[in-house]
Amino acid sequence: MDHSTSLLRLIFLALGAALVLLIVRSAFRLPRGIDTPTTSLFDDATAGSSCTRFAPWGCRQADRIKQEQKPKPEPPSHENDVPLHPLDPLTVTEINRARELLRAHPPFASSPSSMFVHSLALDEPDKPVVLSWRKGADPLPPRRAVAVVRFRGEAFVLAIDLASGAVTPLPAPASGYPTMTMDEQVSLCYAPFSDPAFNATVQRHGVRMSDVACLPISLGWYGPTEENRRLIKIQCFSAEGTANFYMRPIEGLTVLLDMDTREVIRISDRGGGIPIPPAANTDYRYARHMQEDVGGDQTTSRSEAGFQKVRAPSMEPGPSSGPGVELVDGHTVRWGGWEFHLKADARAGMVVSRARVQDPGTGAHREVLYKGMASELFVPYMDPTEAWYFKTYMDAGEYGFGLQAMPLVPLNDCPRHARYLDGVFVAADGRPYVREKMICVFERYAGEVAWRHSESPITGMDIRESRPKVTLVARMVASVANYDYIMDWEFQMDGLVRIKVGLSGILMVKGTAYSHLREARENEDTHGTLLSENVIGVIHDHYVTFRLDMDVDGADNNSFVRVEMARQETAPGESPRRSYLKATRHVARTEKDAQVRLKLYDPAEFHVVNPTKKTRVGNPVGYKLVPAGTAASLLDPEDPPQKRGAFTNNQIWVTPYNKSEEWAGGLFVYQSKGEDTLATWSERDRPIENKDLVLWYTLGFHHIPCQEDFPIMPTVSSSFDLKPVNFFESNPILKQRPTKEDDLPICSATAV
Amino acid sequence: MDHSTSLLRLIFLALGAALVLLIVRSAFRLPRGIDTPTTSLFDDATAGSSCTRFAPWGCRQADRIKQEQKPKPEPPSHENDVPLHPLDPLTVTEINRARELLRAHPPFASSPSSMFVHSLALDEPDKPVVLSWRKGADPLPPRRAVAVVRFRGEAFVLAIDLASGAVTPLPAPASGYPTMTMDEQVSLCYAPFSDPAFNATVQRHGVRMSDVACLPISLGWYGPTEENRRLIKIQCFSAEGTANFYMRPIEGLTVLLDMDTREVIRISDRGGGIPIPPAANTDYRYARHMQEDVGGDQTTSRSEAGFQKVRAPSMEPGPSSGPGVELVDGHTVRWGGWEFHLKADARAGMVVSRARVQDPGTGAHREVLYKGMASELFVPYMDPTEAWYFKTYMDAGEYGFGLQAMPLVPLNDCPRHARYLDGVFVAADGRPYVREKMICVFERYAGEVAWRHSESPITGMDIRESRPKVTLVARMVASVANYDYIMDWEFQMDGLVRIKVGLSGILMVKGTAYSHLREARENEDTHGTLLSENVIGVIHDHYVTFRLDMDVDGADNNSFVRVEMARQETAPGESPRRSYLKATRHVARTEKDAQVRLKLYDPAEFHVVNPTKKTRVGNPVGYKLVPAGTAASLLDPEDPPQKRGAFTNNQIWVTPYNKSEEWAGGLFVYQSKGEDTLATWSERDRPIENKDLVLWYTLGFHHIPCQEDFPIMPTVSSSFDLKPVNFFESNPILKQRPTKEDDLPICSATAV
Repeated sequence: MDHSTSLLRLIFLALGAALVLLIVRSAFRLPRGIDTPTTSLFDDATAGSSCTRFAPWGCRQADRIKQEQKPKPEPPSHENDVPLHPLDPLTVTEINRARELLRAHPPFASSPSSMFVHSLALDEPDKPVVLSWRKGADPLPPRRAVAVVRFRGEAFVLAIDLASGAVTPLPAPASGYPTMTMDEQVSLCYAPFSDPAFNATVQRHGVRMSDVACLPISLGWYGPTEENRRLIKIQCFSAEGTANFYMRPIEGLTVLLDMDTREVIRISDRGGGIPIPPAANTDYRYARHMQEDVGGDQTTSRSEAGFQKVRAPSMEPGPSSGPGVELVDGHTVRWGGWEFHLKADARAGMVVSRARVQDPGTGAHREVLYKGMASELFVPYMDPTEAWYFKTYMDAGEYGFGLQAMPLVPLNDCPRHARYLDGVFVAADGRPYVREKMICVFERYAGEVAWRHSESPITGMDIRESRPKVTLVARMVASVANYDYIMDWEFQMDGLVRIKVGLSGILMVKGTAYSHLREARENEDTHGTLLSENVIGVIHDHYVTFRLDMDVDGADNNSFVRVEMARQETAPGESPRRSYLKATRHVARTEKDAQVRLKLYDPAEFHVVNPTKKTRVGNPVGYKLVPAGTAASLLDPEDPPQKRGAFTNNQIWVTPYNKSEEWAGGLFVYQSKGEDTLATWSERDRPIENKDLVLWYTLGFHHIPCQEDFPIMPTVSSSFDLKPVNFFESNPILKQRPTKEDDLPICSATAV
Repeated sequence: MDHSTSLLRLIFLALGAALVLLIVRSAFRLPRGIDTPTTSLFDDATAGSSCTRFAPWGCRQADRIKQEQKPKPEPPSHENDVPLHPLDPLTVTEINRARELLRAHPPFASSPSSMFVHSLALDEPDKPVVLSWRKGADPLPPRRAVAVVRFRGEAFVLAIDLASGAVTPLPAPASGYPTMTMDEQVSLCYAPFSDPAFNATVQRHGVRMSDVACLPISLGWYGPTEENRRLIKIQCFSAEGTANFYMRPIEGLTVLLDMDTREVIRISDRGGGIPIPPAANTDYRYARHMQEDVGGDQTTSRSEAGFQKVRAPSMEPGPSSGPGVELVDGHTVRWGGWEFHLKADARAGMVVSRARVQDPGTGAHREVLYKGMASELFVPYMDPTEAWYFKTYMDAGEYGFGLQAMPLVPLNDCPRHARYLDGVFVAADGRPYVREKMICVFERYAGEVAWRHSESPITGMDIRESRPKVTLVARMVASVANYDYIMDWEFQMDGLVRIKVGLSGILMVKGTAYSHLREARENEDTHGTLLSENVIGVIHDHYVTFRLDMDVDGADNNSFVRVEMARQETAPGESPRRSYLKATRHVARTEKDAQVRLKLYDPAEFHVVNPTKKTRVGNPVGYKLVPAGTAASLLDPEDPPQKRGAFTNNQIWVTPYNKSEEWAGGLFVYQSKGEDTLATWSERDRPIENKDLVLWYTLGFHHIPCQEDFPIMPTVSSSFDLKPVNFFESNPILKQRPTKEDDLPICSATAV
C-alpha cells in the first residue's frame, strides 16, 4: 500500500503545479503479481515519469505522441457530490465507503490487497420504488451497491448496503469471467516484455523493442483447452514513425498469457516473410500532418485543395442564448417536453433512465422508457487463420464500454454550447476516479425540417408553413483500442427518440507480403482488401445490442404487437385493382412469438403498446421500434463466437422484465460459452402479454474495408427510432412556433 | 388573347403597389375551352381579385387563408439572364424565343392559341460535348430545346434549334399522355362546379358550395374503358373552418372528367352516411393555432408545455463568416472539394450534373456523377374501393415534381445563411414564369463527427483527434397537393454524397362513419387507421426512383460489381472457427445481371467501378451505392398500377447510357399502361460491362398512418449514399483541420 500512497502524493504535487499530463501509461504499471494497480481520482492528473522495464516504449513515445500542451483548468472535483436521485450513480464518497466495506468483508479482510474490483456500481432500487419517489417530498431510497470482485482466483458478486454496511453474497455465474479491469488491460500489454522468447521474436521481425506497442485481445471461447483460467492474447505493432501503430502490425505474432499469473503460455509467430507495413502516410495527427509532406507526390498546395477552407460552424451561440438544455441535479435532463435521467456506466457507457415526454394536450409527463442502454457489442472478424480467428470481441462485457470512453473533445466532438457530464468509475483497487467530459448534451439544429406544408397553385391557398427540427442529443464516445464508437441518443419534440451508433477511429489491419493486388493468386481469399503496401483491411461485422426497458404509459401493462404488412389479392370483380397491402395486428403471447428477423419483402411495424390505455378514438397507445439500415450475422449458429453472440440471432427480442437480465451476452462474458445470453433466457418462452416488457434491438454493420478507410476510418453511422404510435391524440409539432429573424442570435464572424 | 393581356397589366399594377399576394387561384382560372391560361412571369406577383363562377370558394377563402401580409422586396427579374454553362436551363429569353418558333411552326401556326405547352426545357448537348467544354476557352455549344406540345388532341415532341430556328418533330410515345400542365391542374378543379348534378351532390353532403375545395387526381390506367381520351378524377373536401381541408373529405364523391373537353363524364357518390369529419383540431397554421384553444380541454398553459421554449438556432452567422458556398454563374456550386452544376427542372424537380470531387492527393477534379435526379415517384394507396383504388400517383410524370415546388420558407425550410436558386418554368401558353427560391444551398453542421480517434489508457498515448462533419446541402421541396417531399443532396468532404427524401405535409384521409374503433366490425379491413372522429388515414407506399448517370473517373469505362457477402464454412481442422463471412466480386455482364432485390441475409455491396483505373495497390476505383432503410412494393406484379410502376420491382437496376431513357415510368406517364418503363427497357438485357452506365435506385416507404399523423404529418426521412470505394488512395479527411475557438463566430443572443 505504501507504493500507491506515494503515487497519490505525486498526483497532488502534479495538480498543484498545474502541469497536467493525460494518462501516462507508466503510471498504470502493475508490478508483476503484487498489489493493486494505482489509479488516480482525476484521470487528467495522473503524473509520474519513471520508466521501468515493463514500459519499454511508453515513456519515450510519450514525448512524441502527446498533444499540444497548455495549462488546463483544474478538473472538477466530485469529492463532495451527493446523490440526489434514486438512480444517481455511486458518488466518490459512496465508492470509498463501499471499498472499505469490501476490504473489511471476510474473506477479503485477510488480504485486502488481493481483492480486485472488476465492477462496483449502484444497485438500482426496484422499479416501483423509483417510480413512486417524488423529488423534494421523499427521502432517497436506501443506497445500495453491487460489486463484482475477484479474490484469489474466484469471482464474487456482492450486494452492499451502504447505510447498514451489510455485504451480502449473491450467486455468481457458473462460467465466464467478469469484465477486465482497466488496470489489467493496461498492464497486461507490458507483461510479454519480461519474456526473453518474446523479445527475441520481436527482434527477428526487425522491430526495436522501444518501438513496440501491444494490445490486449480478448480471445473468445473455442473449446475446453482454454477453460479454467483467465487468458488473454497480446498482439503487437511497431510505433516507429507514426502515432498510428495500428497500421503497422507485427503480423502473425500472438502471445497467449495467463491474466492472473501474467505467465506467457505460448508465443505463436506465423508472420514469417510478412514485412511491417511502412509508416509513410499513416500518421493522422493534424499538427504532424501539416508539418510533413505526407502525400509525397502532390504538387498542388494543400490549402488550394479546399479541405481546410471549410469552417465548422458553431450551430448556436451558447447556453446564454435561450432556455436550451436544463441539467437538473447533475443528471436530470429537461428539454423540449422531455425529461430523463442520464448517467455514465462503466460497462454500458451511457444510460438513459425514466425518459418521459410531456403530453401537449394535458401537460403531464408520460412514461416511455424506464431504462435504455447499449447492453452488449459483438465484433467478429472474418479471418479464420491462427492470428485472427479469435477476434470476436464483446466490447461492453469484456472491456467495459464506459471504461473506454475518453474525455470528449470540445468544439469537435460536440458543438460549442454543449454541456458535459463526468463519469465516476472504480479502479481495480476499489478507489474512485473521474472520467472528465465523458458525456455531452446539446441542442441540435441540423438544418432539417420537422414539419412543413405549402399549398401549391392547385388549391391556390397562400400557405407556407414550416417548422425547423430542433433536437436534443446526448453523446458518448467509447474508444475501444482502434475503434471509436459514437453513441447518440437524440430526442425530438414530437416524441421520437433516435438511437444512433457511429463507427469511427482506425481499422484493425493485417500485415501481408503483398504490395500490389497482382501479387495475389487468382481468387485468393485474403479476408479483406489490400489498402496500402503490406496492409490488408480485414472484413468484420459490428453488432450493438440495445436493451430498452419500455414502460409505455406505465410499467406493468405493455404488450408487443407486430403489425404485419402483406399483399392482399382482391376477389374477382371486387375492384379494378388486383392487390393491395393489408396490415394485420399480431399480439405476441410469448417470447418466441416476438423474435424478429427483418425482411424487406415481409415487412412489419413493431409496437410496444399499453392495451389498457386507449386514445379518444380507441387506438392503444404505443411506441414503435423503427429499424433503419442494419446488417445481420451470417455466421454458423453453431460456431463458438456466434453461440456467445447468439443475442444477434434476431434483430428484435422481447423479454418480460427481469432485473438480472441486463447484459445480452451474460453477466460474465469474458471466455463465456454462450450459456447465459438473451437467446438462452428467451428459450424459456415466457409469457409477455400485458406485462412489464424489455425490448431488445441489434443494430448491425458489415464492413468490407476500402482504401478510404486508410489510414483512418471516417465515421459510418446507423440508427433506429423509438417513435410514438397513437401515443398522442394528435401531432405535438402543432405547438411549435416558426422561427423568425428576431429569434436568432446576432453573430459576427472572426477571421478564418 | 386580350383576356390575358389585361391580366398582365393588372399584374404590373400590383407589382407597382408592392401589394403582393402569393398565388391567388382565381388568376389561374381557365375559361372553359378557350384560350390558354394566364400565368405571370413572377409567381409571387400574380394578382387579381375577380371572382368567377368557377372559383366558388377560392376568393372568400383567400382572405382567411393567406399568411400574414407584409411588403415584400421585388422578386428577382430573370429577364436578362444569359446561359453561361452548356447545362444551364432555358432562360426567359430562350423560352420566349422557343415559344415564337413553336407558334410559327406548322400546323400550330394555324391556331397558336390551341397549342398547349406541356414541357419546354433545354435539350442538353451530347455528353462528349459537355465534357470537352472549357469555361472561358470555348463558346457555349448550340442551344437547343425540346418541347412536348399538345395540339387539337395530339401530342408532339419537338426539337428546337434556338439559333437556326429549326423545329424538328421527334417520335412521340405510342401510349400515355404528357405531364399535366400546371394551368390545367389548377383549372380542372373548378370544372365540376358548372355541372348541376355535381352541385346537387355536394349539397346533399351538407357542404356549402363556397366551402368546397377540390383536387385533381390522376387515375392511372385500369383497362381499355379508360383509353383514348385524357381523363382525370376530381375529389372534393370541405374547407369550412380550417385551412386543412384534407382532413375533411366529402368521402366517396368522385367526378370523372375529360381533361380536354372539361366534360363531366361520371359522378360517383358512394359516401352515403359518411359525415364530413369535424374541423376541430385540424388547423395547423401557427397564427391560428395560438389564437384558438385547439386542444379544448387542457388546463395547463401551453407556454408551460415547453414546446415553444425551444428556439431553432441559426447554425452559423451567415455567408460573410467564411468561404462557405461558392455559387458561380448562377448554377455551379463549389464547396469543400466538390464542384457541380445545379438546376431546377419542371419534371425532376432538382438536377445535379457533372458532380466532380477534388482528389486531395493531386488537386485534380475527378468525375463522379454526370447527372443525378429523381426520375419518377410512385405512390400507391392501399384501398381497393371505388373512390380510392385508382390513387396510384406518379408525381413526377403526371404532376411535374418541379412544377409543384413552391418557394422555400427562409429560416424554417433552410437555415439563415442559405443561398437560393430560382426556377424558370413554362406555362401552358409557352410563356416563362419564375418560381422564386425554389432551391436552397447551405453549409451544414449538425454536431456530427466526420472522424475521431482517442487512445484509451490501454496504449497510454495522449491522443484526442476529432474532426467535425461539415457538409453541403442542396434542397428542394415539392408540395404535391397534400404531401411535401423534401429532397436533399448532401455532399461530404470525404467524397460521400447522401441523397435524402423527407416526407412531410398532410395525409390524404378517408371519411368514415366511425367515431370510435369499437364501432368497427371485428377484423374489418378499414385500409388504415382511425385517426380522429370520422377520419381514416389510409395505408400507402411511396417510392422515389433516382436516375444516377455515373461517370466514375470517366464516362465510357464503368462496370457494375456486386460484392456478395456469404457464409463460408471452414474445412474440418482448418480453424477453431466454423465459419466466417467471405466477400466475392461479381462483375455484371448484362442488365439482368444487375437487377437487385435487397435481402438482409443475402447482403452485398454495389460498386460502380472504372476497371481501367486502378489505385496504387491495384484496386479498381469506384463509387458504391449504399442503401439505408427502404421498403419494397408488395403489389401483384400483374396489378395494373404495379405494371406502370414496374421500375420499383427491383431496388437497383443498371442500364447502358441512353439519352432517351431518363424517366423510369416512360416519357408519357399519364394513363400509360407500363409499356415504356425502366423494366421494359431492361428486359432487352443489354451488355453493361465497361460502358457508360446509368444506375437506378428506388427508395421506398410503407406508411401505416397513426394519430401522430393527424392533423399534420411530421417529416419521415430515408436516404441512400454514393460513397467512394477505393476511389481515393487514402482518406481525404486527413486534410481537415480541427476546429479551434478562434474559428467560431462571436454571437450574442437576442431576446427569445
